[in-house]
Amino acid sequence: MSSITDDIKLTARTIRTLAMDAVQKARSGHPGMPMGCAEIAAVLWGKILVHNPADPRWPNRDRFVLSAGHGSVLLYSVLHFSGYGITLDDIKNFRQMGSITPGHPEHNRTVGVETTTGPLGQGFANGIGMAIASRLLGEEFNTPESSLINHYVYAIVSDGDIMEGLSAEAASLAGHMGLGNIIYLYDFNRITIEGSTDLTFSEDVRKRFEAYNWHVQEINGHDPDAIEKSIRAAQKEKNRPSIIIANTTIAKGSASKEGSEESHGAPLGDDEVCKSKEKIGCSADESFVVPAGVYEFFRARNMELSKAYDSWQKEFTEKISGQKKTRWDGYFSRPDIHSIRKALESIDFAKPLATRESSGKILETIYGLMPNIIGGSADLGPSNKSFVKGYSETGRNRIGRNIHFGIREHAMGSIQNGLAYYGGFIPYAASFLAFMDYMRPAVRLAALGKLHTIYIFTHDSIFVGEDGPTHQPIEHLASARAIPNLHVIRPADAEETRDAWLAALSRTDGPTMLSLTRQALPPLKRNGAPGSGSLENGAYIISDTDNPDIIILASGSEVSISVDAAVDLAGKGIKARVVSFPCWELFDGQPEEYRKKILGHGTPKAVVEAGIRMGWEKYAGSHALYITIEDFGVSAPYQALAELFGFTKNNIVKRVSEFLSDKKR
Amino acid sequence: MSSITDDIKLTARTIRTLAMDAVQKARSGHPGMPMGCAEIAAVLWGKILVHNPADPRWPNRDRFVLSAGHGSVLLYSVLHFSGYGITLDDIKNFRQMGSITPGHPEHNRTVGVETTTGPLGQGFANGIGMAIASRLLGEEFNTPESSLINHYVYAIVSDGDIMEGLSAEAASLAGHMGLGNIIYLYDFNRITIEGSTDLTFSEDVRKRFEAYNWHVQEINGHDPDAIEKSIRAAQKEKNRPSIIIANTTIAKGSASKEGSEESHGAPLGDDEVCKSKEKIGCSADESFVVPAGVYEFFRARNMELSKAYDSWQKEFTEKISGQKKTRWDGYFSRPDIHSIRKALESIDFAKPLATRESSGKILETIYGLMPNIIGGSADLGPSNKSFVKGYSETGRNRIGRNIHFGIREHAMGSIQNGLAYYGGFIPYAASFLAFMDYMRPAVRLAALGKLHTIYIFTHDSIFVGEDGPTHQPIEHLASARAIPNLHVIRPADAEETRDAWLAALSRTDGPTMLSLTRQALPPLKRNGAPGSGSLENGAYIISDTDNPDIIILASGSEVSISVDAAVDLAGKGIKARVVSFPCWELFDGQPEEYRKKILGHGTPKAVVEAGIRMGWEKYAGSHALYITIEDFGVSAPYQALAELFGFTKNNIVKRVSEFLSDKKR
Repeated sequence: MSSITDDIKLTARTIRTLAMDAVQKARSGHPGMPMGCAEIAAVLWGKILVHNPADPRWPNRDRFVLSAGHGSVLLYSVLHFSGYGITLDDIKNFRQMGSITPGHPEHNRTVGVETTTGPLGQGFANGIGMAIASRLLGEEFNTPESSLINHYVYAIVSDGDIMEGLSAEAASLAGHMGLGNIIYLYDFNRITIEGSTDLTFSEDVRKRFEAYNWHVQEINGHDPDAIEKSIRAAQKEKNRPSIIIANTTIAKGSASKEGSEESHGAPLGDDEVCKSKEKIGCSADESFVVPAGVYEFFRARNMELSKAYDSWQKEFTEKISGQKKTRWDGYFSRPDIHSIRKALESIDFAKPLATRESSGKILETIYGLMPNIIGGSADLGPSNKSFVKGYSETGRNRIGRNIHFGIREHAMGSIQNGLAYYGGFIPYAASFLAFMDYMRPAVRLAALGKLHTIYIFTHDSIFVGEDGPTHQPIEHLASARAIPNLHVIRPADAEETRDAWLAALSRTDGPTMLSLTRQALPPLKRNGAPGSGSLENGAYIISDTDNPDIIILASGSEVSISVDAAVDLAGKGIKARVVSFPCWELFDGQPEEYRKKILGHGTPKAVVEAGIRMGWEKYAGSHALYITIEDFGVSAPYQALAELFGFTKNNIVKRVSEFLSDKKR
Repeated sequence: MSSITDDIKLTARTIRTLAMDAVQKARSGHPGMPMGCAEIAAVLWGKILVHNPADPRWPNRDRFVLSAGHGSVLLYSVLHFSGYGITLDDIKNFRQMGSITPGHPEHNRTVGVETTTGPLGQGFANGIGMAIASRLLGEEFNTPESSLINHYVYAIVSDGDIMEGLSAEAASLAGHMGLGNIIYLYDFNRITIEGSTDLTFSEDVRKRFEAYNWHVQEINGHDPDAIEKSIRAAQKEKNRPSIIIANTTIAKGSASKEGSEESHGAPLGDDEVCKSKEKIGCSADESFVVPAGVYEFFRARNMELSKAYDSWQKEFTEKISGQKKTRWDGYFSRPDIHSIRKALESIDFAKPLATRESSGKILETIYGLMPNIIGGSADLGPSNKSFVKGYSETGRNRIGRNIHFGIREHAMGSIQNGLAYYGGFIPYAASFLAFMDYMRPAVRLAALGKLHTIYIFTHDSIFVGEDGPTHQPIEHLASARAIPNLHVIRPADAEETRDAWLAALSRTDGPTMLSLTRQALPPLKRNGAPGSGSLENGAYIISDTDNPDIIILASGSEVSISVDAAVDLAGKGIKARVVSFPCWELFDGQPEEYRKKILGHGTPKAVVEAGIRMGWEKYAGSHALYITIEDFGVSAPYQALAELFGFTKNNIVKRVSEFLSDKKR
């Protein structure tokens, strides 16, 4: 009978051969990392992780994040051993069209993959979000007698993850919050694509993480006992996140490429694969071999794990019932939009209000109705109106629904993704729209991963005013709309802001961004005929007229001035329809008939939006009148900027009149 | 006669009153930071900085970066005292339309402002770029007897700067490179917008920077002697960057808002301003008062400085002559495009080549011709073809023209901006196009600041292949084109890549991004009539026909398949013109006549580009045929992706034929 250490060694060796074979067959991929982390993965999946392949969404499962996503075949191997539905054929199909084993792990393609990783640093921060979610859920449902939510968040992170500023932000916050449920294994192999980390990276990582208030250990990453012992020690550390610096050799086991950057991102080559297999005691003639012992080892492990799972289910049934069960279901079911809408409709929005202010009031109401809406701002809470008084908040060694992210936009976005990956939460993140750029990689991954995240981006135009061009978004609406599967909503008044929030909460297949004003906007009167639509349709007629001479498309703060301009234009005998156009993506989803009704047939069009015109041509054509901004902004009071850039009622009237009379000529 | 300490104190007090008055008059701004850093600024500008207001571009001046750009009025005050051309009226005009005292410092608006700051962390990293530039220039022109370039780079950085991951990346690299010419003063006031840093920030900053190999001191930031002594000590440290943790009180001197976040981003209020002036011994009745003593102090300082300046000029004239002068001028004058073009035209590009490969060969030639082209990649040099063999490279305690940035895209972009702000260098930065998002805030600031930077973004489409959707740019061309003043060039073959580089080197008013392929592209034959244009025109006819039935607009890797499709279409009796459209911004700058010639009059159009269609409607109209990609990519070999997404000759032929026959119906 084999010892557990033998099983671990056999598992590690099998990871190595699968990694070599899969990358070789695909003629593409990263063999070095899986070979270097084979023992770490074998110990984690063979002895440490508590999970259940038969119930991959078990709420109290340990989370595992492969932050070094390029080592995907490592994860596919252990998922295969564990029985997650990845077959050996899937591994043979590595990186091929339609396979469940893509180049980098994609959480919505492969069961058992908790996060989509690849862009470096993201997984590191996702794990922090998961740890926060776990703590929040535990605070709500654990009792002194029963810890229903008490799992850990594990990750394998690489030199690249540690070098990215994103992980620095996330690590500082995790240390501050004292997230002892985090255990990260740092694959310190000292090799990056350009060569040795000596080229660029000589910082003292131990000291740096100690400075962040992390628990730091350092081990030989190829020693199974050291790996296990350090993880057990990390589990005992309850008040600090743990990082285990595992000194490894990239491509460990390779015949001639151990420790070389050549093994990082390219197949080893047929000859090298054969020689390497011989070196580690495998047959050079066979590929994709998984010894029976590996399957047996993981079958035994699953037997153990199923006991833990069954006793958790029993405890859950005993402890979570009645009101507690209702509360629990409040986390793990879709929001009840009908009752939320009713509650929001009772807010009095009769007075002019910045849409960030309306959003703040709406969020406050939502907090009372939904236990699982959580989030915060990257230090702009008072400006973003994203902090909800009367609810718990984060701080030193403290978690809460209001998360103070600090001046760390990128970590905010990636932590938010981690909260969403975790399940049970609908997280929001807030900043100025101009600073969306700081967290753009995280927004993209939310869109790619179809995550239910919400962005509150305020100060959404030149009307930021005096802070000037560095703080004034110009191209940001366009660049947000460019991201596939991100809904960008720019409401024009409080009512639209309410509907925007409802649309964001209702979405089931991706993130929504709210673009909100700093300055007050009047509540709008809607005079469209029945069937003229509403925000849900993406664009709708807010001010109509028979047989319009011109259709003005506007969004956000430019809608009310366009409506005012339409009144003046009517006085000059020009009939203008105004379409409030808060969301392209929702509009694109409407039936053609509706879209044609809103946009008219051949009626001349104007677009009024305080941003670049790029993309509006799709709705207005290339010969429309564009009152937009094609260059950076200017520091000045916002009223002066409205004049300078032409976002006034009078200028719209003037430009439309000229435009139509030019057309007649 | 006053002592120097008295002068410093008077200067600091005057900074405080000017900050209060300017923000109060503007009814907008940030008084807390200037008041908290008044002594630091007084010492720096009164006793430390070596510069010359009469020659603001003196190459050996000390650089000062206000990374905490929201404290702009602090900088405007000392620039005023020093005689930089900011008058008291300008300070009264703080944050007003057209003033030279905008909300955040803008380097191309105000003489003496070295960097555009405001978005946090940027100034921190810009300074690292300046320090690298200084070292490079010193290595070239200093001799054992004469140190012509020996200045320092100073910055005031804030809690926000330290919290941003950007500064973590930059600090790690600066420590690695041993940049002893950096002296940063950290305004550690423990206050951010949301309140005390206790909410989010308890890391041990001293320890963290020691981990990065920085020289760290800690002082009372209101004690002029301590400030000066710590700076002198930092000057002596030659092999490590220095950070001085200056414990300060935000809004120091305020009657009731010392240490409060309320002082951060809003005027103190008239009453509070009066009380505060009284508290610090000034008349409450007067505003914008600068005591004569302050002007005298700075006049005396300028006298001293002018001696240093004169002796430097003398030394420069003595030491830099003949060939050395020619070499010096090679840094500080525009590139000789004519001779560079000649050299590049001698490269043999007869065979199919990825445009990243052509770019690599071109860059190699440029390195030999221009001493001041420097840069590198965020660890993707071998993939980006951005490393030039045979020239110096950075490493531990070592600088060089080839900069290894490590896996730190954002720091790369901001350091690159610092190199450009410095003067004398044309820096490039390289990564995968998908990871442009990680450095987008830096690219935006380069565009805003009209910096001469060049981006080499390779792997520019789904044709990345197996690495999958996290690594495949879809919306990135559109989102890059959205940034005002950024030229985005996507060449179609080696010849266009050469012309793209020439366009990038020739630009005088902003950055250029090159979008390059991973996969090989054939050299294209051009059959356009004389006057059909070239890359310089942004778009040009690459394959023409009389009276085309359709005009196909394509860029980059989609041009050659479009040209092939045109041949097949001709066989089917369909006359297709193909326009290679590498750069929207250059095309938009052409005369209307040229644009009409290229785009035809009412001829149906098709767009073929492996990215989202957004914005192409401007050139092709909303009823054109779009062969584009509107969702994320897929992990698979690139040939399979070409089939899946329809980027094949046959699919273009099919779609165009269908499109034209639909039109006829």
